[in-house]
Amino acid sequence: MTEATAPSYTLADIVADGCFVPQPDLAAMLERLGTKKNLVLQGPPGTGKTWLAKRLAYALIGDPPERARERVRVVQFHPSYAYEDFVRGYRPKGREGLDLVDGILLEAVQAATAEGDRPFVLVIEEINRGNPAQIFGETLTLLEHDKRERSEAIELAYRRFDGERVYLPPNLYVIGTMNLADRSLALVDLALRRRFAFVTLTPRFDAAWRAWCAREGRLPEAFLDRVATRIAALNAEIADAPSLGEPFAIGHSYLTPGRGRAVADPEAWFQAIVATEIAPLLEEYWYEDPATARAKAEALVRP
Amino acid sequence: MTEATAPSYTLADIVADGCFVPQPDLAAMLERLGTKKNLVLQGPPGTGKTWLAKRLAYALIGDPPERARERVRVVQFHPSYAYEDFVRGYRPKGREGLDLVDGILLEAVQAATAEGDRPFVLVIEEINRGNPAQIFGETLTLLEHDKRERSEAIELAYRRFDGERVYLPPNLYVIGTMNLADRSLALVDLALRRRFAFVTLTPRFDAAWRAWCAREGRLPEAFLDRVATRIAALNAEIADAPSLGEPFAIGHSYLTPGRGRAVADPEAWFQAIVATEIAPLLEEYWYEDPATARAKAEALVRP
Amino acid sequence: MTEATAPSYTLADIVADGCFVPQPDLAAMLERLGTKKNLVLQGPPGTGKTWLAKRLAYALIGDPPERARERVRVVQFHPSYAYEDFVRGYRPKGREGLDLVDGILLEAVQAATAEGDRPFVLVIEEINRGNPAQIFGETLTLLEHDKRERSEAIELAYRRFDGERVYLPPNLYVIGTMNLADRSLALVDLALRRRFAFVTLTPRFDAAWRAWCAREGRLPEAFLDRVATRIAALNAEIADAPSLGEPFAIGHSYLTPGRGRAVADPEAWFQAIVATEIAPLLEEYWYEDPATARAKAEALVRP
Amino acid sequence: MTEATAPSYTLADIVADGCFVPQPDLAAMLERLGTKKNLVLQGPPGTGKTWLAKRLAYALIGDPPERARERVRVVQFHPSYAYEDFVRGYRPKGREGLDLVDGILLEAVQAATAEGDRPFVLVIEEINRGNPAQIFGETLTLLEHDKRERSEAIELAYRRFDGERVYLPPNLYVIGTMNLADRSLALVDLALRRRFAFVTLTPRFDAAWRAWCAREGRLPEAFLDRVATRIAALNAEIADAPSLGEPFAIGHSYLTPGRGRAVADPEAWFQAIVATEIAPLLEEYWYEDPATARAKAEALVRP
Amino acid sequence: MTEATAPSYTLADIVADGCFVPQPDLAAMLERLGTKKNLVLQGPPGTGKTWLAKRLAYALIGDPPERARERVRVVQFHPSYAYEDFVRGYRPKGREGLDLVDGILLEAVQAATAEGDRPFVLVIEEINRGNPAQIFGETLTLLEHDKRERSEAIELAYRRFDGERVYLPPNLYVIGTMNLADRSLALVDLALRRRFAFVTLTPRFDAAWRAWCAREGRLPEAFLDRVATRIAALNAEIADAPSLGEPFAIGHSYLTPGRGRAVADPEAWFQAIVATEIAPLLEEYWYEDPATARAKAEALVRP
Amino acid sequence: MTEATAPSYTLADIVADGCFVPQPDLAAMLERLGTKKNLVLQGPPGTGKTWLAKRLAYALIGDPPERARERVRVVQFHPSYAYEDFVRGYRPKGREGLDLVDGILLEAVQAATAEGDRPFVLVIEEINRGNPAQIFGETLTLLEHDKRERSEAIELAYRRFDGERVYLPPNLYVIGTMNLADRSLALVDLALRRRFAFVTLTPRFDAAWRAWCAREGRLPEAFLDRVATRIAALNAEIADAPSLGEPFAIGHSYLTPGRGRAVADPEAWFQAIVATEIAPLLEEYWYEDPATARAKAEALVRP
Repeated sequence: MTEATAPSYTLADIVADGCFVPQPDLAAMLERLGTKKNLVLQGPPGTGKTWLAKRLAYALIGDPPERARERVRVVQFHPSYAYEDFVRGYRPKGREGLDLVDGILLEAVQAATAEGDRPFVLVIEEINRGNPAQIFGETLTLLEHDKRERSEAIELAYRRFDGERVYLPPNLYVIGTMNLADRSLALVDLALRRRFAFVTLTPRFDAAWRAWCAREGRLPEAFLDRVATRIAALNAEIADAPSLGEPFAIGHSYLTPGRGRAVADPEAWFQAIVATEIAPLLEEYWYEDPATARAKAEALVRP
Repeated sequence: MTEATAPSYTLADIVADGCFVPQPDLAAMLERLGTKKNLVLQGPPGTGKTWLAKRLAYALIGDPPERARERVRVVQFHPSYAYEDFVRGYRPKGREGLDLVDGILLEAVQAATAEGDRPFVLVIEEINRGNPAQIFGETLTLLEHDKRERSEAIELAYRRFDGERVYLPPNLYVIGTMNLADRSLALVDLALRRRFAFVTLTPRFDAAWRAWCAREGRLPEAFLDRVATRIAALNAEIADAPSLGEPFAIGHSYLTPGRGRAVADPEAWFQAIVATEIAPLLEEYWYEDPATARAKAEALVRP
Repeated sequence: MTEATAPSYTLADIVADGCFVPQPDLAAMLERLGTKKNLVLQGPPGTGKTWLAKRLAYALIGDPPERARERVRVVQFHPSYAYEDFVRGYRPKGREGLDLVDGILLEAVQAATAEGDRPFVLVIEEINRGNPAQIFGETLTLLEHDKRERSEAIELAYRRFDGERVYLPPNLYVIGTMNLADRSLALVDLALRRRFAFVTLTPRFDAAWRAWCAREGRLPEAFLDRVATRIAALNAEIADAPSLGEPFAIGHSYLTPGRGRAVADPEAWFQAIVATEIAPLLEEYWYEDPATARAKAEALVRP
Repeated sequence: MTEATAPSYTLADIVADGCFVPQPDLAAMLERLGTKKNLVLQGPPGTGKTWLAKRLAYALIGDPPERARERVRVVQFHPSYAYEDFVRGYRPKGREGLDLVDGILLEAVQAATAEGDRPFVLVIEEINRGNPAQIFGETLTLLEHDKRERSEAIELAYRRFDGERVYLPPNLYVIGTMNLADRSLALVDLALRRRFAFVTLTPRFDAAWRAWCAREGRLPEAFLDRVATRIAALNAEIADAPSLGEPFAIGHSYLTPGRGRAVADPEAWFQAIVATEIAPLLEEYWYEDPATARAKAEALVRP
Repeated sequence: MTEATAPSYTLADIVADGCFVPQPDLAAMLERLGTKKNLVLQGPPGTGKTWLAKRLAYALIGDPPERARERVRVVQFHPSYAYEDFVRGYRPKGREGLDLVDGILLEAVQAATAEGDRPFVLVIEEINRGNPAQIFGETLTLLEHDKRERSEAIELAYRRFDGERVYLPPNLYVIGTMNLADRSLALVDLALRRRFAFVTLTPRFDAAWRAWCAREGRLPEAFLDRVATRIAALNAEIADAPSLGEPFAIGHSYLTPGRGRAVADPEAWFQAIVATEIAPLLEEYWYEDPATARAKAEALVRP
Repeated sequence: MTEATAPSYTLADIVADGCFVPQPDLAAMLERLGTKKNLVLQGPPGTGKTWLAKRLAYALIGDPPERARERVRVVQFHPSYAYEDFVRGYRPKGREGLDLVDGILLEAVQAATAEGDRPFVLVIEEINRGNPAQIFGETLTLLEHDKRERSEAIELAYRRFDGERVYLPPNLYVIGTMNLADRSLALVDLALRRRFAFVTLTPRFDAAWRAWCAREGRLPEAFLDRVATRIAALNAEIADAPSLGEPFAIGHSYLTPGRGRAVADPEAWFQAIVATEIAPLLEEYWYEDPATARAKAEALVRP
């Protein structure tokens, strides 16, 4: 059978799906994920981190999305998310009292261990919206790529039996996404940081974006030039603003039409997005100085 | 049957119900809600945010209020409101211990999924009085308009069965109201912000307001001119005050009589409202400087 | 039957009971309560807020206290008071586990709904000693006078059945009392504030007070003049003090004998109250400067 | 029977028991307790607040200690003390789940109500070591002396039956003791303060103290003169020190021998107390400046 | 029988066991413990506080350690230690729900009451590592030496039966140890402080220490001279350092060999202790200035 | 049998396994562990603390890893880790309610006591990521090397039976690892510190590292020279940076290939690690100054 001779989802498929990141950069990400086992995609909101995280997972597995999805699990961290949800904890069982239940990480460990020759991926969206130090607990140590073997197993806070030891198998990969602008929510934790490789995604109002917008959104070249120029100017101002910086830039997904969604009236489309999405964001950024916020929003849509 | 040929509740009905926002602006709001799926109406207290949120929902559904209401659910966020109330959590069941119970969001998801061709609306009043990051938890990711499909489903903290995955269907719309003056209660959360379009409502002591007050409250033109002029002056002072700003302006609903409620003695009516509602508010605004607060209140009612 | 032709408790009865607030002012308060539905009586300690709150309730109901009391419920907010106590929550039921129990607000809603043609009053003492935003929760929205109808009902965090919706009936009135000096305990919450009308009570060492003290306490005119003059001077100093202000003034109830309680030795009576009540309060007010506190206390009782 | 013609415990008995406060001052305290119902004895550590609180209770009841004690209940507030302990709360009952149990205040209310013609006293030691606002909860309102009647009853957070209302009877008196030096532990709460009369106890190294020490401790006059002079000098320094003040003075009970406890070696006795009790306290007071603390301790015992 | 004529463990035995505190000082401590009932041994780490606390207890009881130990109970306070552990609290009993269980203090009260003619001692190590105000709760009042009788009993938060009152018997002694350097962990609580006598232990690199080290550790005189001189110099620098002080001095137990443990290579022994114990401590002390820390460590071991 | 004549795992084996620390230093560590019983390995991230901790344990036991592992238990502290997990606590048992369960420390105590002639080791990774004062609780006192005997036993907060006393046996050793850069997570606790000896590991880009990299990674000498020189320069800058210091240095494990893992393209390998691991770390270090961070990263890889 030749069924397994070539993977059925590759980096080229990611580009074809509408990714604006060049394919060699995608290859470098995949290489780092393969070696380091744990990767964080970071960047401003609207740069497609979540979208890319899943597709990198499919490409690592090498199966098309609908098939790969069985070996990809997706969670999102948030302030109420706890060690007990992620690793293991006691959970109510009606009249039966409390039961020790494995969280998604230990479930993924079991699945990956059972089928040790195939990669499994755990995607953690918004990894810095929770408190990763608390959520990972002692599995932090196990994440490290050179501790992915039985001899490095440790004992968890809640054990199923005396002496139970746990380790993460080498075929379990973790991809987190991290919004740098929501830094106030993040715990800057060097120990966690050391276990991950980091790749930064940036707003891409470039040729690939223009090509997509022209093809799918039927947007005219001149219009796209103007939008790209003005957003670039705004993003430069944001990057230079004392309390802001590059992580607060406007991502391209605010201004990218979906596949096959032709935009009937480009100017109205742009103005509506600026008025209800970008302008309120700028008012948040320059909260103490609403006149500046308003001027920047107007500069975007000025004819 | 022609029953469905024309919607039975339209934007024109909103205006007829006493809305002072021009109909084209309402149309733009409805368009944004349709595209972005999630909309926040923000503005100072007393600008009719809640009133309009429900009527936009009826117009989106296209049914008159009494019928549309079946597909509109209304909650209010507050500091005790939790993820467990909104999404899913364990709830006591008498002697039976604890049971996993879906909150209003997952109930709305089920209803909308079951009848996928009709819009459903969830109105969240005072969305910034709770801690939205905690209340939404991992459903934050699912809110996004381009994640409204099964392939974007994720796993929740509390699952009903192994591998249960959840997503928000495209026919479930969310409208929040947000009081900008109560900023201290809000979590300024950029990730949440990116999922919503924002529309700002402002105090409207304009022609539409005058027409309504003259017709329904039987208030004389000269009186309305005076009130409008003085409130406008006060609102300008509030907007310029260092620790205040536009979000602290006095909304028109303080000074708008209900439908058919003729005001017997306009001066007494105005003075009572100023004395017991506006003056105490100004004393709060200028807490450190009670003389200024008093002077501004007196300037309003000075003959 | 003529039994119902005239109310049997009126504003005149409040004045006769020993209220020093002029009757027209009381009428204005009652009018505001009737229109706005929710009223807060605020002022320094010892100005009779609680006493008046109940009597306004009796006058609104129009029944003498002993009969009106059935339709007046009284609570006091405090730091341990919770949403679960006031609105609805789970409560232990011995071996039966936990039961969903309505708090005093929902009980009052039921009683008022059942007898919709008669007013009911909920008195909330020390409304700012608790955390009103947490205690009211989503019923905050329902308080508003123009939301007192079924079509404005919302869903609570804890529901008795799927789709249960709750609203406050128009015949349920709320009167809060608020001690402005204990500001540190209050949550200054603009959204809550907008739902209430506010009336400020002040220390009244005036003619009405003198008349009462002379009649009931048998206190001589010259003595009362002296006390009134000195307290007025002290209250002016308190109002001007940087870290204090009018809300810290000394209320008249410190120095008002009860009905029919003749004071045997006026000087001794005054000195004891100053020594054990007013002087310790001044020591608290001028904590950093005990000499000033002592001087002010001595100035009160100096012959 | 003449048994009840004269009380068998009077203010004279308090003085005879070794109180250094003059009897007229005691009479004034008792009068205030009788009128205001609630009294706080405040002062530096070691001034006999607790000792006097109980004896004032006996004198109010008019029975000798062993008999009066049945109608005196004593508690001490502390940081873990809760509303549920003091007023009413749910308490475990083994397999029976939780039961609603009255705390000491409601028990005292019942006892006092049952025997309404006899005084009952609740002594609260260290009233400011707990959080009185939380511990008293809504009974704060009920403390007030002119609310001690059924018509002022309110509803508690936890009710035994629908509509249960509670009030404090007029024959229930409360005496608190408060250590002013531990201010950091106190919640300075004006609403609570208004319900109590306050009396300050001071260190008394006076004639009464000397007489007691000479008689009971067999201490020589010259020695007592020296001790009194030096402690007075130290207390003056403490009162003037910037971060200290009168509430930090050294109380006389550090240096008062018990009844009939003759001191064998006065100098050794004094030096040991200075070395192990007063010097460590001074080191705490002048923590940043140990040399000063040591100098002051040495000045006390210098021959 | 003469068995009880002389105590079988005395202060002389403490000195013989290797205590460097002179016997008259020990006698003074024992006298204070006998009179005040409660004693705290305070001092820098490594000054033998715990060791001495137990031996003072044996000497008070007058029995040799193996026999005295029955009447000595030892606990250590820490941040998780609670009132419920120390005094009384509800504890799980499997399926039986919760049971009211006495903590070690009430157990000691019962034991001491049952055998009222023999002393019992409760040793509390690291008394300032917990929150003593919370752990002692209302038993704080009962500690006082002149409240050790039934007539001073009070009611606890959790009572076994209505009206249960508790007091500490006079034959129950408490000895705490307190590390002054860990001040950040201590609650400086004057009320607690007043109940205890305090004795400070200091580093003793004196003749007694030299004699012990020469005899037991076989360390040469010249070596001991050098160590003593250098540590004394270092301790003087620590005492003078702005953010440190005497409580941070290096205690002698770092550098005292155990009984009969001859040191083979004195220089290597000293260097290892400096390198792995004293140097890291100095790096902690001078965290902002690692060069100074290193210089001081090197000065100790410089030939 | 000669089986036990020589230990089958020695310090020489540690060096052979790839440790860059010279063997005499390892011997000193083992000596300190033997004497002090408790040792902390501290240092910047990536200096092999965990790796060495386990191997020191094997060498102490003297058995090869696969056999020694039975007597080595490994945990990791983290913010959710509690006294109840580590020492003893109540744990759910389904319908059976709660059961008192020993944590890993008490389990290790039992195992070590049962086989008192063989060493047992407890490895605590990231000892400063939890709150050690809370996790150890009263076992802190028992850690001390001269309290490892029955006569020093104390009573725990949760006792299995009246009078149960616990001590740590002398054959139980504790090795902690501590990341100095994550200081914000550490509780600098002098009492805890005194119980441990400390050894600092530093980044080692030295001859041993070069030899390993050349042998296992097939990396050319010139390349290794360049990497070592540049990292050394960077580490010196980090050590001098005001808000950083030596604990923030880059450890060698970032740049050490695994056993037998030849690096195909050294430059690409180095650049990828710098880009995704070191550069993001530098951006974190110089968060306020991204240009400096970028310059330093570029300086590393500049040809």
